[in-house]
Amino acid sequence: MITAKSFDEIKMGEKEFFSKTFTEADLGLYSGITGDFNPLHMDVEYAKQSRFGERVVHGILVVGLASSVLGMKLPGIGTIILDMTFRFIAPVKIGDTITVEAKVVDKIERKKFVKFDTIFRNQKGEEVIKGDTLV
Amino acid sequence: MITAKSFDEIKMGEKEFFSKTFTEADLGLYSGITGDFNPLHMDVEYAKQSRFGERVVHGILVVGLASSVLGMKLPGIGTIILDMTFRFIAPVKIGDTITVEAKVVDKIERKKFVKFDTIFRNQKGEEVIKGDTLV
Amino acid sequence: MITAKSFDEIKMGEKEFFSKTFTEADLGLYSGITGDFNPLHMDVEYAKQSRFGERVVHGILVVGLASSVLGMKLPGIGTIILDMTFRFIAPVKIGDTITVEAKVVDKIERKKFVKFDTIFRNQKGEEVIKGDTLV
Amino acid sequence: MITAKSFDEIKMGEKEFFSKTFTEADLGLYSGITGDFNPLHMDVEYAKQSRFGERVVHGILVVGLASSVLGMKLPGIGTIILDMTFRFIAPVKIGDTITVEAKVVDKIERKKFVKFDTIFRNQKGEEVIKGDTLV
Repeated sequence: MITAKSFDEIKMGEKEFFSKTFTEADLGLYSGITGDFNPLHMDVEYAKQSRFGERVVHGILVVGLASSVLGMKLPGIGTIILDMTFRFIAPVKIGDTITVEAKVVDKIERKKFVKFDTIFRNQKGEEVIKGDTLV
Repeated sequence: MITAKSFDEIKMGEKEFFSKTFTEADLGLYSGITGDFNPLHMDVEYAKQSRFGERVVHGILVVGLASSVLGMKLPGIGTIILDMTFRFIAPVKIGDTITVEAKVVDKIERKKFVKFDTIFRNQKGEEVIKGDTLV
Repeated sequence: MITAKSFDEIKMGEKEFFSKTFTEADLGLYSGITGDFNPLHMDVEYAKQSRFGERVVHGILVVGLASSVLGMKLPGIGTIILDMTFRFIAPVKIGDTITVEAKVVDKIERKKFVKFDTIFRNQKGEEVIKGDTLV
Repeated sequence: MITAKSFDEIKMGEKEFFSKTFTEADLGLYSGITGDFNPLHMDVEYAKQSRFGERVVHGILVVGLASSVLGMKLPGIGTIILDMTFRFIAPVKIGDTITVEAKVVDKIERKKFVKFDTIFRNQKGEEVIKGDTLV
């Protein structure tokens, strides 16, 4: 049985990454499984008239990449997320490739918790979402 | 152009709800669009041996219901999420029906921000996720 | 280039069939592409308390089988639907296998239109939807 | 339990709307759940040589927006569709944003039925489908 890194194996400052390009099809599927049909995501004509000028990817869909990197790479398989905090800084557009960087910023010995900073950047290196997660 | 409730129309303590049953198909689709293939979600045999005894729904997928209620009901169409904080309290299983309650707990006049408490409960009324969102 | 049967090849009373089992995943995908999150389809707890006692398949999703049989079998490839009328008689449940029967009931010489009766039955032979379509 | 507007609350002439942009991914998913693989929808080369010059969106998929507006907005949650009639006037292309307008045109006191006119327009305001629905 593959398992996550143990608490002692995880080093302060250690980092991992996960990247994905968000497509129009992703928006359609995500709307379907969450019921979020906000026209900023689903209606080209509405989005044109919005402050973004085009459809934007659902923010919480992008945040899901944090779970991918934490649950599959560091700490890895079997990781359980306890707390998450996120700030949405800039919109993610269809076709953007987002890379999340998860970096160990704290280790809580008594409870064996690890805190990660999670920074999401687009293909131009611009920060689009920032947050932290306790696992 | 349909828009959200205006800042002045939103009352302290006002509430809205959104419900959905999470299915096995939802997990497959969500894993596909985020890359989160943590075997706690995708591998029946692994999940049987985990502390949960069966597969659990991705926590951030469930959090997405917050965006559905905020972006479609209160404040409504066109709402933009700025900040989110979540605590995962109990696992969501396949077949669970989750209802998110979004309740206005603060209004920040100067910036026209509204803060919501978001509580996610399963069909037995148990709290599974708690958090707040600034829009 | 494969084409539909010509107007003259189509005989009065001629029939074709198309069958499909409707799954829980179909409901999720269909809700996603149409935005129809009526809880009669998506919320197990709500549906239990409804007159149907369980989730029902979206009626217009089932009607789509008419387009499958007309556009692929009779008249066939390239068929264009002009008019449709449907009556929803009984609910379709998850797991039901629906067979649509399309039968030629009229041929309008001057415009080269063909009228089909379309009857949808479940695996017990019960009629669930009836209608007609002009192609 | 959230419910639809009652018969008495619904006014003659009352209207509601629902909009959505149809994407290439929607066509693929819809074909998958209905089996309608008519090459007018699924085969770029075939569609180029057809009278439309490009792939068109499945008409009954577009009709599904009627169910979204009736089942979620007016009358709302829990609405049951009894009868539908549709005329397909003009093709819907990939990338078109379709808005359905549902307008109360009759109320049948004895049976508590409500009849809606449903008009589907594209982003240029052109009517693409017209019909009526009894709920």
